[in-house]
Formats: sequence, C-alpha cells, structure tokens
Amino acid sequence: MTEMTNAAFPMPDPKMGEPYLLTPGPLTTAFSVKEAMLKDWGSWDDDFRAMTRSLCNQLVALAGGAAGELVCVPMQGSGSFAVEAMLGTMVPRDGKVLVLANGAYGLRAAETLRVMGRAHTLIDKGDYLPPRGDEVGRALDADPAITHVIAIHCETSSGILNPVAEIAQAVHARGRKLLVDSMSAFGAVPLDAGQIGYDAMVSSANKCIEGVPGFGFVIARKSALEAAKGNAHSLSLDAHAQWATMVRTGQWRYTPPTHVVAAFLEALRLHAAEGGVAGRGARYALNRDVMVAGMRDLGFETLLADRWLSPIIVTFFNPAHPNFDFQRFYQLMKSKGFIIYPGKLTVVDSFRIGCIGRMDEHVMRRVVTAAAQSLAEMGVDSAAPPAAAIAERAKLAA
Amino acid sequence: MTEMTNAAFPMPDPKMGEPYLLTPGPLTTAFSVKEAMLKDWGSWDDDFRAMTRSLCNQLVALAGGAAGELVCVPMQGSGSFAVEAMLGTMVPRDGKVLVLANGAYGLRAAETLRVMGRAHTLIDKGDYLPPRGDEVGRALDADPAITHVIAIHCETSSGILNPVAEIAQAVHARGRKLLVDSMSAFGAVPLDAGQIGYDAMVSSANKCIEGVPGFGFVIARKSALEAAKGNAHSLSLDAHAQWATMVRTGQWRYTPPTHVVAAFLEALRLHAAEGGVAGRGARYALNRDVMVAGMRDLGFETLLADRWLSPIIVTFFNPAHPNFDFQRFYQLMKSKGFIIYPGKLTVVDSFRIGCIGRMDEHVMRRVVTAAAQSLAEMGVDSAAPPAAAIAERAKLAA
Ligand SMILES: Cc1ncc(COP(=O)(O)O)c(C=O)c1O
Ligand SMILES: Cc1ncc(COP(=O)(O)O)c(C=O)c1O
Repeated sequence: MTEMTNAAFPMPDPKMGEPYLLTPGPLTTAFSVKEAMLKDWGSWDDDFRAMTRSLCNQLVALAGGAAGELVCVPMQGSGSFAVEAMLGTMVPRDGKVLVLANGAYGLRAAETLRVMGRAHTLIDKGDYLPPRGDEVGRALDADPAITHVIAIHCETSSGILNPVAEIAQAVHARGRKLLVDSMSAFGAVPLDAGQIGYDAMVSSANKCIEGVPGFGFVIARKSALEAAKGNAHSLSLDAHAQWATMVRTGQWRYTPPTHVVAAFLEALRLHAAEGGVAGRGARYALNRDVMVAGMRDLGFETLLADRWLSPIIVTFFNPAHPNFDFQRFYQLMKSKGFIIYPGKLTVVDSFRIGCIGRMDEHVMRRVVTAAAQSLAEMGVDSAAPPAAAIAERAKLAA
Repeated sequence: MTEMTNAAFPMPDPKMGEPYLLTPGPLTTAFSVKEAMLKDWGSWDDDFRAMTRSLCNQLVALAGGAAGELVCVPMQGSGSFAVEAMLGTMVPRDGKVLVLANGAYGLRAAETLRVMGRAHTLIDKGDYLPPRGDEVGRALDADPAITHVIAIHCETSSGILNPVAEIAQAVHARGRKLLVDSMSAFGAVPLDAGQIGYDAMVSSANKCIEGVPGFGFVIARKSALEAAKGNAHSLSLDAHAQWATMVRTGQWRYTPPTHVVAAFLEALRLHAAEGGVAGRGARYALNRDVMVAGMRDLGFETLLADRWLSPIIVTFFNPAHPNFDFQRFYQLMKSKGFIIYPGKLTVVDSFRIGCIGRMDEHVMRRVVTAAAQSLAEMGVDSAAPPAAAIAERAKLAA
C-alpha cells in the first residue's frame, strides 16, 4: 500500500503494513487509539474513575437523551455480553419478549432469552426481510402477555438498516417497551432517544466509535433501570448492579479492561472531532456509496436495494462464474491489503464488505481496484450473480 | 523515579513517568506487552486463529496436565465472568456446591451461585482464616447432596494462600469434584493438575501472566467439560459452547478482545523467558520477602504469619498512630510513584501491597523507602498496629 496525502483526513495512520479490516469489527482503528493503550492504569485510582465518568457522560450525550433521563452502563465482554445484560436486566423474570429477527443477531437475542429461561416469541423474517411496523402491531395485539420488543437496528448479517422508527411507534402505541440492539449502528446512524423512546439500547466499543474490542455498553432510561433491580439471571451480567456500583463508587464493579477504556476515550475524541454522529455517518455513507458504485461497475450485485442499504456493511452476491471461489477471493484481497468478510445468507452464497473503521473514500476506491484485480487473477470475467440470487432478491420488492 | 540498570531484568521498562501498580491487577506490565497492542487484528482471519490456538496450547502446558487431558476455554470479560462461566457450566442444574470462603472472592462465588439459582452451601471462615481439609471432609460427609467444592487458591482480599492440596484430598476421598479459583495465583504458584485433580480452574489475563485485562480463561478436564453441555444459565457465559465453537472453527464464539489477546501472547513469551511458573514465582517471592522485611523494619505488621503469606499480595495493619490516615498515605505513596491498595478486612483497618507485575526487588526497596518517607511526612513515628489487630491475628495461631 502506498501512503496517502489527504491533509484533511490523513489515511492511513502508520499501519505498519497491516491490512485494512473491511469487517463489522474489530475494525481498523486510528493509531492514536492504539497508542492510548501504552500505559497501565490502576482501576481503583481516581485518574481511572475520572476516565470512566467521562466515557459514560460522552455516551449519554451521544445518545441524545434529555438531561438526567438516560444513564450509561459499560459492561465487560463482547457485544453479545451487553445484549444479554440488557435482556436479563430490563426484562422482569415474568416478562415476555417479542424478538424481531431478520438475521443472525436477532436469532441470537432469541437464543439468549431461551437459555436464560425468559418467555419470548419470535417474528423471523428470514435472511434479510425487514420486520415492519404493522406486523409488529398485529403481533402485539394478538398477545397481551408481551411486555418488551427487541429490534436490531442494523442487522449486520445482511447489512440491512431496519425501520426502527416505525417499529417504535407500533410498540409505544400499545404501551409496550422497546429494547434496541444498535451494536453496529450507534455513533454513525442517528437513534434519537427522544424520538425512539427505548427503555434501553446496546452497542460496543469496537463498532462505529472505532475503539478496540473489550467492552459493550447499555444506555438505559434511568427510571427503567431503577425498576430493574433483582431481575438479572447472572451476577456478572447484571446491568443494574453494575450501574449501582458505579454510582456509589465511581468504579466498575469488577476489573475493567483499562487499556481498552483508554483507547475508547481517544476514539470518542476523534469521533467528536469528526463532527459526531453526523460527521461519522457521512464518511461511512460516502465509503458505502463509492464502494457500492465501484463494485456494481464490476458487475457485482448487492442483496439489498438502495433504500435498505446501511452505511455499515454491504452484502454482495457471489458471482455465478465457475472460477469464482470465495476462499481464493479472500486470500487475493488480503494479499492486496484488504480483509473482507464472509456472508451469512442461508439461501444463496454471498460475501460482505464493511464501510466502518478508520478509512475514507480513497481507501474504498482501492478496495474496488483490488476486487477487479482479484477477479482477473481468478479468471472471472463476469461478477454477475446466479439467477437464484436475483429471484431471492425480488422478494424484498414484493 | 530514576532509571534502573539491572541488565538481567531491566526495570522499569519505559514507563513514561506512570506509577507502579502495587495492586492485584490491573498490573504494571512490560512495555513490549503494551506495544503488542499497536496493531488491529481481524478476529475471523487465520492469523488471529493461530494466535488463539497458541494461547490455549501454552496455557494448557502451563497447567501441567497430561497430553489431551486438559482444555483451555478463554472467556471475554473480567475474571468474575470466567468464575461465573466455570460455575454455571461445570455444575449441573441439579448439582450442589460447597463454597469455601475466607474473603471477598469466596463470598462472590456464593453470590454468583445464588443469583443463578444453583444449590450451594457455605463454609465462611471470616476475613482470612483458612478452610482446612478436615472441616471440608466433615461438611461433605454431612451432606451427600454436595457434588462440587469450590476453593479459592490465593484469597486476594487478605493475600492468604489457601491449602488447596489438603482440600483436594478431602474432596477426592469422598468422590466429589473440585473447582479452583486460581485467579491471582495461576502462573506464579504451582497448581499441578495431576496432583490437585480439579475438574476446572480459572484465572485471567491480567494477573501473574502479566497481561492486560480483558479476558479470563477456564482450564477444564476435557471429559468433565464434554459432560457439561447444556448446563449453563447464560448464553455468553457458556464455557462448553465457547469451547465447542473454538474446536469447530478455531474462532472465539463472539468478538474477542483482539488487542488484549495479542498483549497476552507477548506476556506468555516473557513468562516462559523468565523460567515459567518457577521463575515467575521466585521473583514474586523475592518481591514479597524484600518488601515485607522492609515494612516490618518500619514497624508495620502483617495480618498473616509467614506460613500463610502468598507471593501475590500482602495485607498490613494500619498503624494505630492518630496521625495515620489511609487516604493521605495513598496519595503520598502515589506522589512517589506507587499505587497501593486499600484493605478488605471487616474487623480492623488495613491496606495491601501487591508483589506481582513487572517489578523486582529493587522496586520493592523503593516502595519501602517511599513508605518510610510517607510516614515521616504524616508525622507518624510508629507504624505499630492497634492491640485489637494483634488480638485478631492471634486467632490464626489458635
Ligand atoms: C447487531 C449486532 N448485535 C450483536 C453483535 C454481537 O457482538 P459481539 O460479536 O461483540 O459479541 C454484533 C456483532 O457484530 C452485531 O452486529
Ligand atoms: C481470587 C480472585 N477471584 C476473582 C477475582 C475477580 O476478578 P475480576 O476483578 O477480574 O473480575 C479476583 C480479582 O482480583 C481474584 O483475586
């Protein structure tokens, strides 16, 4: 890779020859984010408590809640741990959850509820079809026992941006409570707490804020979290207990990933410098637009119509050409400095290219060039998908 | 702090003026451990899978099990998450656990079981008195429903090294299963799997291996883990499912803390270079001996008699002198470059000084000097503890 000279947004940072991660996280992060980890912090010490306080305050501000209305509860572990903490804490033991699934992360939420023994029911739209407000409304009308609905903001397994606003409307009109998994979207796609009115949402350090992995966070309405004491099925994943300890002591309840927290604070600084959610979202949208246009020029087709494409990650159908082999394509892309991501569709073969992380449209142009070269090296002269893929996609328009 | 010139074990690494962490973790780590985090890794990529494989193989080798007998399951989150994963996974839903508590971490294990709704019973020895083999035997004889016993190897809240070998003997003689929380001891204090015969033990990245915090690990007998499928109360904290995914795919089930893992591999390299458990343990023991001798020279007294002192962390009684104030002492020590740790005893006031992390006996001498200066600055001319402390300690001899 050659060095770039874009003074406004210098890319790449000193990357020591490593490939870009075109994945939904862990991401390519800024060098200064990683440099922030070159120090050891005492988790009990005042200096670190101040870091924790700043982290929570900044995240609450990003979530855009009215003053005093929202609280932030960081949670050690990966994003799935934070999802489980949100579900186990916010849903009473005698509650019932409607899970809106159109991919792996919706299904994982249902599995989480199953293992913890909480009543739940599922609307499963398959690989990518979006759950719509009217069907959510019908499901709620049909089952008054449902207390909570969990929606996936960006379902990362296809890259679809689900219609959270219309879902929220259906949920609130019926007096139920909304939980949102905004893991892969928070920080780049607006999710205005005032407008959406969730009881809680969840995201993690290594997505659109561009930190390194090691913790997630629940952002909850304070009154809802206060009411959730004693609900949790797990000591470690009890978001209420975690929060209560933080309020009382300023410390994390158990050992925090200190270095990851320090990195996240630097990531938040860069996020603000870029113009917050609007700035970050604009860069990712441009990344997507440049990349999708270039890939379409090569003959690739996206699973989703433009209307549903998130600025997070995009699913492309594998070319029908007999010489195309995903493993080979992956290795060729990697040798050119780009790590792409396998697909998760059950019906047709696909792969994904992420738009998030420390990269801009110049990098995305090089991704397209690398894809063109890789196809040529494999002897694939057309990237057109099989007819089955196009037929599958027609379902979305129907 | 001035630079040291010990060629064999150069200390400190370039520390940029930060204080030493004389705590039970997060610790002062080697600079090269932190430098290993200056890179982003794709968690799905082969390179990272190879890192995970190496991590697990090295930990199994450290645990000293016969080939093929033990397996390692890394778990995202802090050490408490790994303890909960061990308990939730290894204990069947109809099992019953005897918890041996003599401090905060034993009590936390009991609380973990309570929240997850598993039957358990407690031997609570108070602040520090060790649970002994004979009383464990009597408790097991009295309650045939007990299937598992959990022992804390080094109870970090007092620093006592519990008599795990005699406990193991009592447990095995009665055909029950042993689980060990060796969080703060593994890697520096021998815990030979062959001799101790545990079903599982747990530790974490940021203790005696001297990595940075972000994950823990369960080391389990393979046959016991295989039998534990479906036990877990939690999806995220299911050690069996985590292991099964790793065996099948070479990947962590959910996003791993990639940078923390890279740091840990460097920490393992340094651990091996120092001579493994024996070498690491010898340095820590010397740290303790030099520090304890120096503090005793100043008039401080340890909670524990030498026989029970671990090479991990040491509890000292607060001086009785009216001018002594722990908060002030903490700040004075911090201003001299040393972060110490508050005590956890319920009966008398105390503080703790850790012996683990990237420090050697030269550093420990400076700790003692700093303590002497801090006392002088506070106008404390005797570090002798109150009579109540000595009376409390007499219980241990009884
Ligand atoms: C929408 C969504 N939910 C949950 C997760 C799970 O997060 P993690 O892999 O950190 O456990 C992801 C990860 O990409 C995600 O995109
Ligand atoms: C013996 C023991 N068990 C459990 C823990 C909990 O580990 P963590 O603080 O990483 O959750 C500790 C932490 O010091 C410990 O020393």
